[in-house]
Amino acid sequence: MTFEVTILGSSSATPVYNRNPTAQLLNCNEKFYLIDCGEGTQQQLIKFGLKASKIDFVLISHLHGDHYFGLIGLLSSMHLNGRIKPIHIFAPEALKEILDIQFKHSDTKLRYELIYHFINPKKSEIILENSDVVIQTIILNHRIPCTGFKFTEKKRLRKVVVERLEAAGVPLEYYAMLKRGLDLTLPNGEVLLNVDYTTDSATPKTYAYCSDTLMDERYFNSIRNCDTLYHEATFLHEMIDRANETHHTTALQAAEIASLVQAKKLLLGHFSSRYKTLGPILDEAKTLFEASELAVEGHTYQI
Amino acid sequence: MTFEVTILGSSSATPVYNRNPTAQLLNCNEKFYLIDCGEGTQQQLIKFGLKASKIDFVLISHLHGDHYFGLIGLLSSMHLNGRIKPIHIFAPEALKEILDIQFKHSDTKLRYELIYHFINPKKSEIILENSDVVIQTIILNHRIPCTGFKFTEKKRLRKVVVERLEAAGVPLEYYAMLKRGLDLTLPNGEVLLNVDYTTDSATPKTYAYCSDTLMDERYFNSIRNCDTLYHEATFLHEMIDRANETHHTTALQAAEIASLVQAKKLLLGHFSSRYKTLGPILDEAKTLFEASELAVEGHTYQI
Repeated sequence: MTFEVTILGSSSATPVYNRNPTAQLLNCNEKFYLIDCGEGTQQQLIKFGLKASKIDFVLISHLHGDHYFGLIGLLSSMHLNGRIKPIHIFAPEALKEILDIQFKHSDTKLRYELIYHFINPKKSEIILENSDVVIQTIILNHRIPCTGFKFTEKKRLRKVVVERLEAAGVPLEYYAMLKRGLDLTLPNGEVLLNVDYTTDSATPKTYAYCSDTLMDERYFNSIRNCDTLYHEATFLHEMIDRANETHHTTALQAAEIASLVQAKKLLLGHFSSRYKTLGPILDEAKTLFEASELAVEGHTYQI
Repeated sequence: MTFEVTILGSSSATPVYNRNPTAQLLNCNEKFYLIDCGEGTQQQLIKFGLKASKIDFVLISHLHGDHYFGLIGLLSSMHLNGRIKPIHIFAPEALKEILDIQFKHSDTKLRYELIYHFINPKKSEIILENSDVVIQTIILNHRIPCTGFKFTEKKRLRKVVVERLEAAGVPLEYYAMLKRGLDLTLPNGEVLLNVDYTTDSATPKTYAYCSDTLMDERYFNSIRNCDTLYHEATFLHEMIDRANETHHTTALQAAEIASLVQAKKLLLGHFSSRYKTLGPILDEAKTLFEASELAVEGHTYQI
């Protein structure tokens, strides 16, 4: 099953040096989840050849502009491009007010439905569960209420070993039962044990998205053992005072968190406009956590 | 005196083919006026090496998103980049409500002042007059209230002919009077006629910005004899029905307007996303008005 994330924006606060404010596109089994939507996200989708029309879920972590200013434009373009499919929006409640007032004054009546799911900023909870994924909020510690999101793949069905089933002359219509883990009794009374004809599916993977936040151990349980941890790393650690003051994290802290929660991989993002080159951010994180990578716009990371 | 406009966005409605929604930066005597501000305008300023900090005036024609969705991000970045200078915003009244609600929910307290000048959408009037320019609204005909803007340079002072004044031994302190058009009586009683020692300054130029609108003769008087007419040309004339339905103009109509009002130059913009190449738009306009040009992003046009 596809489970990958494409970075659309990696900048904090203001766009600079060809870096755009935060946005990511998560593809989970060919369903598309947009995580945050800074200004210019729709242009980034076009630039990277990604179809906005495929997005069915939008998740907004908080109402600082670098995480949502692009949403009104994206939704407006979807409307102008003929969208009729509903879209689910998981966001702080005030986002609806912000969007509604803009639709009102432009006299825009969307031809598709916005289905809002307001996020409780105080309690980590499951906000979506479908056949592919479970999404749970992560309560972060920022200047205004801010939630991260943990995406956990659903366990897939067992895989049938087709050659063995064909050799045993098992008709196709029995495969579904085997995939669900059942043993088979054939019409002639023969019993086929599931373990002999199937293999287990891959272990479900998890992706945790944490932006923006102070390092705060209260959210560590929510992200423990995740496969890929995206964590903001706005500053180098020499700027720790500034990080604390603005409720952000340093690259060293992001690496420490990845290490403490035993993440398998760390993806660093949300870089301050003061950094023209990002090598030092990556180097700093790697001193504590080797499996660190920079979130590079246009790149897709397997989870 | 500098009087030129740089195109930051030339697309209508949705961004496509590397074209951004509408925005222009007018430089009048090194004072900067931002005309409309579609999503991604701050990124365009960065891309073209223009300083947002120099902008002291913002004019918003109407509240369709492709003309203002970039403003909240631009104003937020100005704040984050330390701006303390006030900025003047000429816009429909509801814009304040749209901006205020977003500043409120992001807990942003700007360190600089937004000075609003609400536009009367029903009456063409002067909205700004300073030592460089007079700005007058143009009442357009769109689906929601929409105003264009006519910028008329102020007549400059007469130019002194320095060689003649030096030959006549006229002290520097008399130059200011001559520039203002006065004759001079020297201490020895000699009279210097102004016309002998000065030349007239250039004729003031006018720039008219018309987007978005149906072709409607009621606004022609407001733009008569302008030096450069920017006019939207969303469609080719074969799409006249669609243009009428959406309250837009075709390239042929824009050319007809330029011809009727005796503009010296026509700048075409606000191109529909259906046009990947713009040659046909320019060709169509030139059949009626030879001095037509396409508004190309990043290009600067002398007025």
